[in-house]
Amino acid sequence: MRDFPPGEKILRDEIISLLKRTFELYGFNPLGTPIVERWEVLSSKYGGGADILKEAFRLRDQGGRELGLRYEMTTSLARFVGMNPQIKKPFKAYQIGPVYRDGPVKRGRYREFWQCDVDIVGARSMLADAEIVNLTLDFFSRINLEIKIIVNNRKLLKEMVAKAGINKEKALEAIISLDKLAKIGQEGVLKELLGKGIAKEKASALLEMVSRKKLSAVASELPHSEGIKELEEFFSYIDNNQVIFDPSLARGLAYYTGTIYEVYLEGFGSSLAAGGRYDEMIGQFLESKEQIPAVGISFGLEPIMDVLLEQRKQAKNSVTQVLVIPIQSTAECQRITQRLRRAGIKTDMDLVGRGISANLSYANSYQIPYALIVGPEELELSKVKLRDMITGKEELLTVEDVIEKFKER
Amino acid sequence: MRDFPPGEKILRDEIISLLKRTFELYGFNPLGTPIVERWEVLSSKYGGGADILKEAFRLRDQGGRELGLRYEMTTSLARFVGMNPQIKKPFKAYQIGPVYRDGPVKRGRYREFWQCDVDIVGARSMLADAEIVNLTLDFFSRINLEIKIIVNNRKLLKEMVAKAGINKEKALEAIISLDKLAKIGQEGVLKELLGKGIAKEKASALLEMVSRKKLSAVASELPHSEGIKELEEFFSYIDNNQVIFDPSLARGLAYYTGTIYEVYLEGFGSSLAAGGRYDEMIGQFLESKEQIPAVGISFGLEPIMDVLLEQRKQAKNSVTQVLVIPIQSTAECQRITQRLRRAGIKTDMDLVGRGISANLSYANSYQIPYALIVGPEELELSKVKLRDMITGKEELLTVEDVIEKFKER
Repeated sequence: MRDFPPGEKILRDEIISLLKRTFELYGFNPLGTPIVERWEVLSSKYGGGADILKEAFRLRDQGGRELGLRYEMTTSLARFVGMNPQIKKPFKAYQIGPVYRDGPVKRGRYREFWQCDVDIVGARSMLADAEIVNLTLDFFSRINLEIKIIVNNRKLLKEMVAKAGINKEKALEAIISLDKLAKIGQEGVLKELLGKGIAKEKASALLEMVSRKKLSAVASELPHSEGIKELEEFFSYIDNNQVIFDPSLARGLAYYTGTIYEVYLEGFGSSLAAGGRYDEMIGQFLESKEQIPAVGISFGLEPIMDVLLEQRKQAKNSVTQVLVIPIQSTAECQRITQRLRRAGIKTDMDLVGRGISANLSYANSYQIPYALIVGPEELELSKVKLRDMITGKEELLTVEDVIEKFKER
Repeated sequence: MRDFPPGEKILRDEIISLLKRTFELYGFNPLGTPIVERWEVLSSKYGGGADILKEAFRLRDQGGRELGLRYEMTTSLARFVGMNPQIKKPFKAYQIGPVYRDGPVKRGRYREFWQCDVDIVGARSMLADAEIVNLTLDFFSRINLEIKIIVNNRKLLKEMVAKAGINKEKALEAIISLDKLAKIGQEGVLKELLGKGIAKEKASALLEMVSRKKLSAVASELPHSEGIKELEEFFSYIDNNQVIFDPSLARGLAYYTGTIYEVYLEGFGSSLAAGGRYDEMIGQFLESKEQIPAVGISFGLEPIMDVLLEQRKQAKNSVTQVLVIPIQSTAECQRITQRLRRAGIKTDMDLVGRGISANLSYANSYQIPYALIVGPEELELSKVKLRDMITGKEELLTVEDVIEKFKER
């Protein structure tokens, strides 16, 4: 778990606010779910699989109820929709907040990390999957990251597994091994598949199929594929060469049922966002058990921050625009400070009676771009001295002039 | 623990964003601390007292470390400043996030609730206390709530307790009883004080003193009071009759050392914000144990929301501005939708191929103010039909006209 000092928190808040802005442009509304959930919800059938569940923090309240800290947010969304069947569908919502995993601490992996999820609940059409991917392209273009979105489909994966002659019971296991292709290579995956009792020729057939790069090349093998049909429809709504089909993409989580995607930046190891379609998860929280289709994506705030912090080198450690420095009259200074604030200028004021040079060095250390010196000679002229902290240039101005100057910028 | 459906979350986000905006206007920067803290930090001497500690959620990680969920945020701030002695003082920071208490569930009390804290670390002058109170006045005037801020001083309380002849060891206990004055009345407090072994004439003397309404009336009894001196300086910086001295205000937390204040709205039981000066808390997290003065306030998002939701009756359940309804061409609709979004208009689009009347009823149920109907006749004229969902008025416009119309509003 980490603290975020202002130098990092300012940038995090900017990214969060840009995500919020983008989500809302695409017709999503904010939803809040608690960080502490009942254990029964977190450990539900579709909650993400045993590997993740092992890493969940567990606790009990004083009434002895079994609770846990959420380790992802899709389960909470599914529970929310299940408990509120009156909600008109499609329900388009976003959630931004921390999740927790009690895993081994290593570089780039944190126990508290923030996810920013968008989900469309109640739309079966590939138009919804495309909406999520278009939103993703839009957000990353706004922060100037030239990402790639790798796309596949769980139905197609199952069809390829079947075509390779692997039987149904081993399908999910085979898909989970495929997920490690980038990490452990063809050899590694082959070894795992053999270890899971899959015959060598079947494993090789699967590996050959997922190595094809074009949708048409896979399609030629599987003429009546449901997965191919969905992917073709999906790509008909997407007109962007950053979105790439890759039949080997598998995704670790158990709950996906259709389209899956991951967002990558060249030269950066982990994905920046990932998600997919999960048509069978929400129903389990409904009394009727009726299936409710859903598709979403989760943006990882930590990897996005890691990329941006590396690019920007030095992060801003204050949002303050001007520091007011009193030479004599504190009361007059307080009045001027309040006037600037009423005009919308982010203003700080000396609260400890430092000398002028200590005040200037304080402004410098917080990278505050302007200092406003309020001295007796200036006040006699009904003026104040505005100092540009970068150039050192000073101007004698009325308070109205100062306000005008900030408005222009 | 509760979910916040969009109808509530939209308003919560607005309030949070206004708090952020106000904090930043006053020269504060954002700080993030984790929700899970080491138990050792949460249970530290100044962490808030045994009553609150009893209500903390406790857990362990897989390495057996003792952890807890934070139950307030001042302790985390103090730990952060202690661990980062290089930070230039005064350090002005704000934190916004949830805290947790495993207390009995009752009306208006939640186990997860949000606090919005601002603190000034490293300024001993009453100017800092006044800065916090001015910021508080400013925020509540922005949300049109005519609050009162009740102010007292812990030094004065101790002096009054001593003047009443109550010995030092019982001072904090006496102050904690005083805190219940509004709840249990003079009789009730007197009974508690007697129960704590304080003689009747001393308890009565204390109760008489704290019933005085004017600073001068208390001052006449305590000519060399440090508390009075601080309060006089504090009030010299405040020019607002919403800020009222009350010598009976005590505050429950153990860590306050000087000014204390609570924010009330007439007719609403709980305080909307509260805080004070705590000059002895941060030092314990420093190796040097040197004292670092600090003052802050915590805004309670839950009581503020309760007041606002009551005022507004019906909360907005969507921020979406327009729903695009395709009659025939999905592709053309998608293009128009993307154009509106690029122009900054919050736009949703039919994803499920509903009929026009189902689409209009969907827009109504989410209170989306406009629908944009894209039909073959309109497209032939290179136009679309914009429908005002409140008046029912429809206009045939080009997409550029639609964008202009939204820009004007």
